[in-house]
Amino acid sequence: MSPIIIPATPAHYPRILDILVDAFAKDPAFLRMIPQPDPANHKLRALFQLEIEKQFANSGHIDIAVDDRGNVCGVALWDFYQGRPSSTDLLPILPDLLRIFGTGTAQIVKAEIHSASFHPHFPHWYLYTLATPASARGQGVGSTLLEHGITRAAESGIYLEATTTRAAQLYHRLGFTPLGYIPTEDDSQPELAMWKPPAMPQA
Amino acid sequence: MSPIIIPATPAHYPRILDILVDAFAKDPAFLRMIPQPDPANHKLRALFQLEIEKQFANSGHIDIAVDDRGNVCGVALWDFYQGRPSSTDLLPILPDLLRIFGTGTAQIVKAEIHSASFHPHFPHWYLYTLATPASARGQGVGSTLLEHGITRAAESGIYLEATTTRAAQLYHRLGFTPLGYIPTEDDSQPELAMWKPPAMPQA
Repeated sequence: MSPIIIPATPAHYPRILDILVDAFAKDPAFLRMIPQPDPANHKLRALFQLEIEKQFANSGHIDIAVDDRGNVCGVALWDFYQGRPSSTDLLPILPDLLRIFGTGTAQIVKAEIHSASFHPHFPHWYLYTLATPASARGQGVGSTLLEHGITRAAESGIYLEATTTRAAQLYHRLGFTPLGYIPTEDDSQPELAMWKPPAMPQA
Repeated sequence: MSPIIIPATPAHYPRILDILVDAFAKDPAFLRMIPQPDPANHKLRALFQLEIEKQFANSGHIDIAVDDRGNVCGVALWDFYQGRPSSTDLLPILPDLLRIFGTGTAQIVKAEIHSASFHPHFPHWYLYTLATPASARGQGVGSTLLEHGITRAAESGIYLEATTTRAAQLYHRLGFTPLGYIPTEDDSQPELAMWKPPAMPQA
């Protein structure tokens, strides 16, 4: 049965954090960004918690997929930008970042500014992240979450970074087209920036 | 009969300048940019001449369409960028701009920087301009010039600004999708930034 998509409430946050940490604990981009070592993924979890509580809960959308037994089986974090994100967007959470990461904050801020610089300079929705627990994969939960966001975006453009070719091909089937690869400083697999165009103007 | 597309040589430049000046003398974007008044379009012509001789002849492509009587019946100016154009790209022609436009150079530089800031931050071809003389319109010359550039771009992305909805729809039929409208400082019709995606990665 297809999951239903609802907005998360604070009661869901611990389960959402479990899903995000499980999904990204071995992700090269987060490993580069989070100061290592990170025993029990405490720092990674703290970063997601900060983003959820201080950013997405206020100005974005936290969508969760709930299965027919009431279990959270996926999460997607969305935000809307009028143009390219500004590095000043980080200022409100800078004190928290410094408290958690100390001087390691520098590499987080640098990664965020690098990522922001590749956004299109036009109004768009941004899919920051989408994750499902291992037990719920292959059941179309990701597609359902994505289609929910596409419906909400209506005639606006959508921007995202695909971390694998397989993910890029899923996005392509849903109407996303490539912009280009985001350069990395090492030889790791670069992310593919993708764009779902807004509606064409009518004559 | 379909025109042939060839690279321009300096002998073609006077005719190319005639075509460009005729096509853009009443264009709102150029009227805003070129210090007015501009009797006999001398300043507009001087700007195009500078761009052709100092920019496109060196680092870009000047394609012309030639009809079966040997007449130039269209021109397209293309350039390739590894990322977003840099404002330092203008420095080599700054002395010439100042000689021609004096303090009016400021508004030209401002317009170029504004325009450049909307380019995708990924490798792409850029169609700076495409023009046909009034006598050659409605014969598919523009499409032929455009398809030539699309073939050369092969699997790279292409960026352009459509100045009218009609033009945007022509580009859309050739594979371009909207990015968004480029904001203007007055209430004139904004240009629609468009993108022809590069090839999808293969699994």
